[in-house]
Amino acid sequence: MLPKKIAIQGVAGAFHELAAQKFFGKDIKAVECDTFRELAQKLHAGEVDFAVMAIENTIAGTLLPNYSLINEFDLKVVGEVYLHIEMQLMALPGVRLPQIAYIHSHPIAIAQCREFLDTLPATVTVVEKNDTAESAQLILKNMLADTAAIAGNLAAEMYGLHVIAKDIHTCKQNFTRFLALSRTPRQSDLNSKASLCLELEHRSGSLAKVLGIWAKHGVNLTKIQSAPIIGKPYQYWFYVDLEWSDNAAYRQAMAEASMYTASQSILGEYVRNSWEAEKTKN
Amino acid sequence: MLPKKIAIQGVAGAFHELAAQKFFGKDIKAVECDTFRELAQKLHAGEVDFAVMAIENTIAGTLLPNYSLINEFDLKVVGEVYLHIEMQLMALPGVRLPQIAYIHSHPIAIAQCREFLDTLPATVTVVEKNDTAESAQLILKNMLADTAAIAGNLAAEMYGLHVIAKDIHTCKQNFTRFLALSRTPRQSDLNSKASLCLELEHRSGSLAKVLGIWAKHGVNLTKIQSAPIIGKPYQYWFYVDLEWSDNAAYRQAMAEASMYTASQSILGEYVRNSWEAEKTKN
Repeated sequence: MLPKKIAIQGVAGAFHELAAQKFFGKDIKAVECDTFRELAQKLHAGEVDFAVMAIENTIAGTLLPNYSLINEFDLKVVGEVYLHIEMQLMALPGVRLPQIAYIHSHPIAIAQCREFLDTLPATVTVVEKNDTAESAQLILKNMLADTAAIAGNLAAEMYGLHVIAKDIHTCKQNFTRFLALSRTPRQSDLNSKASLCLELEHRSGSLAKVLGIWAKHGVNLTKIQSAPIIGKPYQYWFYVDLEWSDNAAYRQAMAEASMYTASQSILGEYVRNSWEAEKTKN
Repeated sequence: MLPKKIAIQGVAGAFHELAAQKFFGKDIKAVECDTFRELAQKLHAGEVDFAVMAIENTIAGTLLPNYSLINEFDLKVVGEVYLHIEMQLMALPGVRLPQIAYIHSHPIAIAQCREFLDTLPATVTVVEKNDTAESAQLILKNMLADTAAIAGNLAAEMYGLHVIAKDIHTCKQNFTRFLALSRTPRQSDLNSKASLCLELEHRSGSLAKVLGIWAKHGVNLTKIQSAPIIGKPYQYWFYVDLEWSDNAAYRQAMAEASMYTASQSILGEYVRNSWEAEKTKN
């Protein structure tokens, strides 16, 4: 059997590939995409079997535009995976920290290592690049002996770099949640979590009513985020994650709640995962 | 009277300065800060009178780390201002589009102008910089005749550049919401909106109860966003914005709701504004 083709954002060795391996196993073919839009397009067009897409981070928050892409390309969430984000400073073998004149990485990774970077001499120049793993890749490709990259362990492994400063991220509790996406929904009695996009009209208390119905049926809200609907003052999209242990109760709650929503779109139903599990492992 | 000193993120001419002028008037002294942390520190230390801080964008979503900074430095929200974000391509006077070899801007601004950039010849190189207005400033400073910057109108005006391609942002309905911050709360009967940070225990339905109380008292929820509390599984921060017309009803609702929250921190009470108003003006 051919390995599954999984669209990832960034180049091989990026955190997206690590997330893809964690969810689908090591026997996959990662298909690199420059942007999240390209990733959604490739999955929609059938060029890949699945995609893995970052959706939120404990520090930075939700990537709202990615919800829009899931809607726009009619993709289905079929799973979730959490990664503990750990940043390493890496260089060509033999190169040591005092030889480094340039550090390349993605702006968010740079921001997350600010305290470490502030300990370096002022002669070291930090350069913003498109991608963490790509920064590592370019050091190998161009044999840059005076340059280090900030990226994850997989990138060091993949591009033959060695880690010259380990775990340089300031906040040690940095998790990113990724969604596994497909063109078709996952239908299974084992599903225990759903991601929804609701539209509620601005009737005082309609959200309270919907939450009350879920609570009554033992359905837990694990995420809620509002986003204004442009052009419709005082109307909002609500991105919601729900968890349950009783399938029938979930179905009943959804049916009752639908009376209080202007629209109720299920982005996907899947088996829940947790960052707590990830944390214990690391 | 000396002009008020307002900390802004980025250099003069950045969207933050525009927001500061809109809220505090033109007679202000903008104090440039490289990062949001520096901005919060300067206000906390009394080096400025107020600060203006982006908190959310209709496309990109909420800047969750900025809520953390407000909490960490015990700052108070005293107002809000909405800006319609419009991107211009600007260059030195006399320079025209076919002469441009490089385009400099912030990665988010670049992403927001992707469709326009895709129409340019492949020989044009797009370079990621720290800031939109700073990209404009450097073109003037270094007299870069082959380079253009993507930034707002105020930057063009401030650095003597002329617009060579107008309104190049892909999504025309792009609003950013900024908070006006102070060291002391705004106390006024005219206040009509509050930003809160709530901690709810994972008792089934506690959020539903709190929302129900607000609804009962005619207090409207205009934003809600959950963020997991790291180290406390299944407990969440909720960042919430509320609007009301009856002060007494709001006070009563807050008192009742406090019985269902583990903690309830008022980030600030202020006079509401709206992006609808902003939209009509532009």
